[in-house]
Amino acid sequence: MKTGIVGATGYGGAELLRILQAHPEFSITSLYTSSQKGKNIEEHYPHLTGLFPQKLEEINPVKMAEETDLIFLATPSGISSKLAPELVENGCSVIDLSGDFRIKNQAKYEQWYKKEAADLFWIEEAVYSLPELNREKVKGAKFISNPGCYPTATILGLAPLVKENLLAENSIIIDAKSGVSGAGQSASLATIYSELNENLKVYKVNQHQHIPEIEQMLESLGYKSPITFQTHLIPMTRGIMATIYGRIDTKITKEEIWDLYQQFYSDEPFVRLRKLGSFPTTKEVTGSNFCDIGLDFDERTSRVTIVSVIDNLMKGAASQAVQNANIMFGLEETLGLQFSPVYP
Amino acid sequence: MKTGIVGATGYGGAELLRILQAHPEFSITSLYTSSQKGKNIEEHYPHLTGLFPQKLEEINPVKMAEETDLIFLATPSGISSKLAPELVENGCSVIDLSGDFRIKNQAKYEQWYKKEAADLFWIEEAVYSLPELNREKVKGAKFISNPGCYPTATILGLAPLVKENLLAENSIIIDAKSGVSGAGQSASLATIYSELNENLKVYKVNQHQHIPEIEQMLESLGYKSPITFQTHLIPMTRGIMATIYGRIDTKITKEEIWDLYQQFYSDEPFVRLRKLGSFPTTKEVTGSNFCDIGLDFDERTSRVTIVSVIDNLMKGAASQAVQNANIMFGLEETLGLQFSPVYP
Amino acid sequence: MKTGIVGATGYGGAELLRILQAHPEFSITSLYTSSQKGKNIEEHYPHLTGLFPQKLEEINPVKMAEETDLIFLATPSGISSKLAPELVENGCSVIDLSGDFRIKNQAKYEQWYKKEAADLFWIEEAVYSLPELNREKVKGAKFISNPGCYPTATILGLAPLVKENLLAENSIIIDAKSGVSGAGQSASLATIYSELNENLKVYKVNQHQHIPEIEQMLESLGYKSPITFQTHLIPMTRGIMATIYGRIDTKITKEEIWDLYQQFYSDEPFVRLRKLGSFPTTKEVTGSNFCDIGLDFDERTSRVTIVSVIDNLMKGAASQAVQNANIMFGLEETLGLQFSPVYP
Amino acid sequence: MKTGIVGATGYGGAELLRILQAHPEFSITSLYTSSQKGKNIEEHYPHLTGLFPQKLEEINPVKMAEETDLIFLATPSGISSKLAPELVENGCSVIDLSGDFRIKNQAKYEQWYKKEAADLFWIEEAVYSLPELNREKVKGAKFISNPGCYPTATILGLAPLVKENLLAENSIIIDAKSGVSGAGQSASLATIYSELNENLKVYKVNQHQHIPEIEQMLESLGYKSPITFQTHLIPMTRGIMATIYGRIDTKITKEEIWDLYQQFYSDEPFVRLRKLGSFPTTKEVTGSNFCDIGLDFDERTSRVTIVSVIDNLMKGAASQAVQNANIMFGLEETLGLQFSPVYP
Repeated sequence: MKTGIVGATGYGGAELLRILQAHPEFSITSLYTSSQKGKNIEEHYPHLTGLFPQKLEEINPVKMAEETDLIFLATPSGISSKLAPELVENGCSVIDLSGDFRIKNQAKYEQWYKKEAADLFWIEEAVYSLPELNREKVKGAKFISNPGCYPTATILGLAPLVKENLLAENSIIIDAKSGVSGAGQSASLATIYSELNENLKVYKVNQHQHIPEIEQMLESLGYKSPITFQTHLIPMTRGIMATIYGRIDTKITKEEIWDLYQQFYSDEPFVRLRKLGSFPTTKEVTGSNFCDIGLDFDERTSRVTIVSVIDNLMKGAASQAVQNANIMFGLEETLGLQFSPVYP
Repeated sequence: MKTGIVGATGYGGAELLRILQAHPEFSITSLYTSSQKGKNIEEHYPHLTGLFPQKLEEINPVKMAEETDLIFLATPSGISSKLAPELVENGCSVIDLSGDFRIKNQAKYEQWYKKEAADLFWIEEAVYSLPELNREKVKGAKFISNPGCYPTATILGLAPLVKENLLAENSIIIDAKSGVSGAGQSASLATIYSELNENLKVYKVNQHQHIPEIEQMLESLGYKSPITFQTHLIPMTRGIMATIYGRIDTKITKEEIWDLYQQFYSDEPFVRLRKLGSFPTTKEVTGSNFCDIGLDFDERTSRVTIVSVIDNLMKGAASQAVQNANIMFGLEETLGLQFSPVYP
Repeated sequence: MKTGIVGATGYGGAELLRILQAHPEFSITSLYTSSQKGKNIEEHYPHLTGLFPQKLEEINPVKMAEETDLIFLATPSGISSKLAPELVENGCSVIDLSGDFRIKNQAKYEQWYKKEAADLFWIEEAVYSLPELNREKVKGAKFISNPGCYPTATILGLAPLVKENLLAENSIIIDAKSGVSGAGQSASLATIYSELNENLKVYKVNQHQHIPEIEQMLESLGYKSPITFQTHLIPMTRGIMATIYGRIDTKITKEEIWDLYQQFYSDEPFVRLRKLGSFPTTKEVTGSNFCDIGLDFDERTSRVTIVSVIDNLMKGAASQAVQNANIMFGLEETLGLQFSPVYP
Repeated sequence: MKTGIVGATGYGGAELLRILQAHPEFSITSLYTSSQKGKNIEEHYPHLTGLFPQKLEEINPVKMAEETDLIFLATPSGISSKLAPELVENGCSVIDLSGDFRIKNQAKYEQWYKKEAADLFWIEEAVYSLPELNREKVKGAKFISNPGCYPTATILGLAPLVKENLLAENSIIIDAKSGVSGAGQSASLATIYSELNENLKVYKVNQHQHIPEIEQMLESLGYKSPITFQTHLIPMTRGIMATIYGRIDTKITKEEIWDLYQQFYSDEPFVRLRKLGSFPTTKEVTGSNFCDIGLDFDERTSRVTIVSVIDNLMKGAASQAVQNANIMFGLEETLGLQFSPVYP
């Protein structure tokens, strides 16, 4: 299958390149860029020296649709909203890694993203796909909206409890932590090494644009009340941990909760549940498509604590996009994604 | 004033040495050790080369009480419980940095610390002192129990709201994060660099021994229900951040909450409240005695979010101990502690 | 091909597992251990959860030779010297990642390693293989001694100049830097996070056991005088950089030196020469089998500066061992090793 | 003494603020800025919240000279060359932390700095002062050029050997490593966290502007040949290590070399020589004015290895400037600088 990437010079794009280079069915035909046309990707990313002969090409939806079967859009919010429809209209399959088609309510998108929403027709056309929860909609789809990094970790952490309707109203708090690569390659005082190293900060307090995405998905699973979701910047490059708190008012034991998760995820190749008493760390999924989950229930407070970790650039972006691509094209879902994490 | 330190070879001890070396009233007379007698401290800590001529001496309470006016016990839990009473009985003032005298209920201590509690007489004798909340008890006291690192950040973050009785029952969740120096100099697979760098982990899920200390203090301030308190290990050496969540059921604005904090801490030299919309980072207090606090209130969820940061080895241990020492001996509370944070 | 690993619980072993899991010809049949028999590898390495069903087995050379075609010894120096011969005698191919068979002069081994040397017969039997320099000896060999991490980066950095006899006598200085994973999983005060983070140290000054290995190889390439080789511990987990200095007394330009390297390595799939004016960083090879090289020549001082980087656990250990395994068994040398670095 | 700082928003400026805030003789009267006039320094540096009431003022040499006795110029090269002379002419004492007045040969400055040199009169007027080597020139001086960070570590590491004329011609190689704060607060792709964390890079190969400064000082001490000096960026915020190599052709032992250093620095309050076999790490001087030195001599190669470490922002900039200020004004040289390093 011929694939192209728009935004290969970003960190998510770099991971797409690494995955697709080794994928048995998708081959990278073309790389597209808005700003570095004519360059080779290795001029931007020396770690790719010698690996990709293609020159970066300019963005031209008609030509892109002719050259490729599938385009990954690793572009910022605000770009995809225009580009994706043109590609799909020209017959190209599209997986969009931006937030532009995730929020089905335009007003909410505009409220949280502070940007103009995409066209409603295309928002509805785009299939939001977290494969573990809705892979059946993806098969044969032409246009996929790939979930955000935080929502992936959070929703996978919450789904079994929410589906069973076990969490008390207004009781969900997600304390989320991310490595700095989530901020991309943007250079600003806020992202320089000396400011972030040996430092820990909160950001976007009660304002993170992933809040409506999580709430929308939880609502579809049956949870109606708003959540508290708070993000922190951790002095590391990769990894997301969502520490999730919720109240359970029905009588339950931690073993019963664990069994629920075990059943829910028993056939999932990319979700690994840790034994009771054991919790995953972010580095244990680095470089892989795994989402690892651990949990505990505290009878003193009737609170469940769920720890969900992913690699933000992988299951939180690039490798989940390839997982979706596999499903779209009827391939084995795990194809080209069965590599183990890179540790230490 | 002649002071001595037991446990100078730990990280808290190292910071005590740094502070007291420059303190105008306390001078370091003697350093005591259980294991490295006869050595010079610079053999253990080369960064102190040339600064402390004293040889490490063995622990002998009678002799220690003769030689010094004040002993800082920077010793692990389980050691202080025996040593502190002997020193006090021999007429020496004592500030204990361990957890041994913090929990006033012996059963709770034993439940959470998994160790035998100290003698009840001495537990009651020891004045637990977080100066911003109970400095009046410290003046003239002979035996101080210095607060834990997490409790310091957490309680200072919560006190104004709790005292006003604004937080809903069973609504407090503290997601706490600490740098690795909190684990001390102990070498184990869990503390080696390659395991912790570029990694993020939870630990002691629902089992941290600082939980009863926080609950005891909150109870004394008027909050009776249990809390959820979860600790995370951050890939940095120093710093604690407590991200605190609670529900407020009365109608209130963030400006009103901010005013409450502003009034509560307006005369405190070591608590710095950030403007609304601004939040402290851990590095902004590194090496200092400051506790910096920022907050927000989310009307969508009726939840307040409080971010409280300290340097775990300073306000969380050594410099707070010196702050207490200043009060005990009737000195200016800020004496020898007015240095600015080390940044970046 | 059935392969087994001794020492899978070390970091080099972990990388062998990651590589072999995805290798098209070598399959991991058995994992052997001296201390954790009966456990599953995921109990030691949670990042491998679900990936390796085998239980760790005890070390029994006869049984190991029956069960497998090839054994990787990721064992410390002093262990391999006994184990490797027994395996080879029982008909098993062996690749030893330790230093035990690298130094062909027993006295030198004992001087630098402070351990008893292996049997001379087996030292001579073991083929030291840095494939780029002596792959012809590896084809069909049964017993390979895999090079050290520092020697790999250093010798590849020096080989083109040394083979042309361009470097002045007694002029080579190698200032080498390594991430902490080179120290393995050993827990000691010297390897804990708080001591190494935000810190930089030299170690084994003029005493590193890789010195005789480098000198032996340089001598075989024609350089007879001793070298200065100094190692530093960098606050990062992975990566080695060798900054190499040497004097060139013949008249030469940097372009001519660059051409020399370009020709020398033009057909090498795993050595990437950077353009003049450009130098590799360690992260640009992380997780891969690449050795990247950049160079400059300073006419002011007649000194050449060569910067050579590898991932110490990969080209410096595990992936180079698999490269050797490919050659031994007549497979394509790049088989299962053509993945791109993990960046950022 | 009334002092002012130009460039307080840089990292060197931040350390000046920290030091002077606690200095018994110098008080900070005014802070000057080219770009943030009217702001309070805490808006730029929240770690200074509450500590400095002064508003940032615009740069006006006449007014500055009226308001203050001494100005520290923590400004980039190219700014000081104009500003310093105007201040001195108006009667103000000046300590310039930039490179503008260090190189006494204008052509060399322009060759290495790629900027126009300062006026020759003022270059000659400026006293270059590394106090340990030329403090006698500083007493009573009005205009000091403070040394660069790398030159400070390097020259202090070499001085005893060079003064004794023990190092062979053309034999000095300095492999220097710095934390990222040396790059200041400038935001670019090259300084963002994700690019530098877990990474190691060389920079300015054979082109660093500190080369002529080091050579000029070595020449004044008697060493005439050019040096090789190579810089590396280490994933840490603070600290410089210079690993220095040189050949000694006369017969000598490491003990004799150590004695030489011991005598040379025996009366120096800020240079600490480590015992033979022991070497300093960068964190052992963090936050202090110390330069720590360790050394070894290898008879195999006749090479001496000297390891010299400083905190680049302190002895490499701010605290050395205050040390010079103390000397200028006839104060005790150690005044306000006797704090111990911050460890860990």
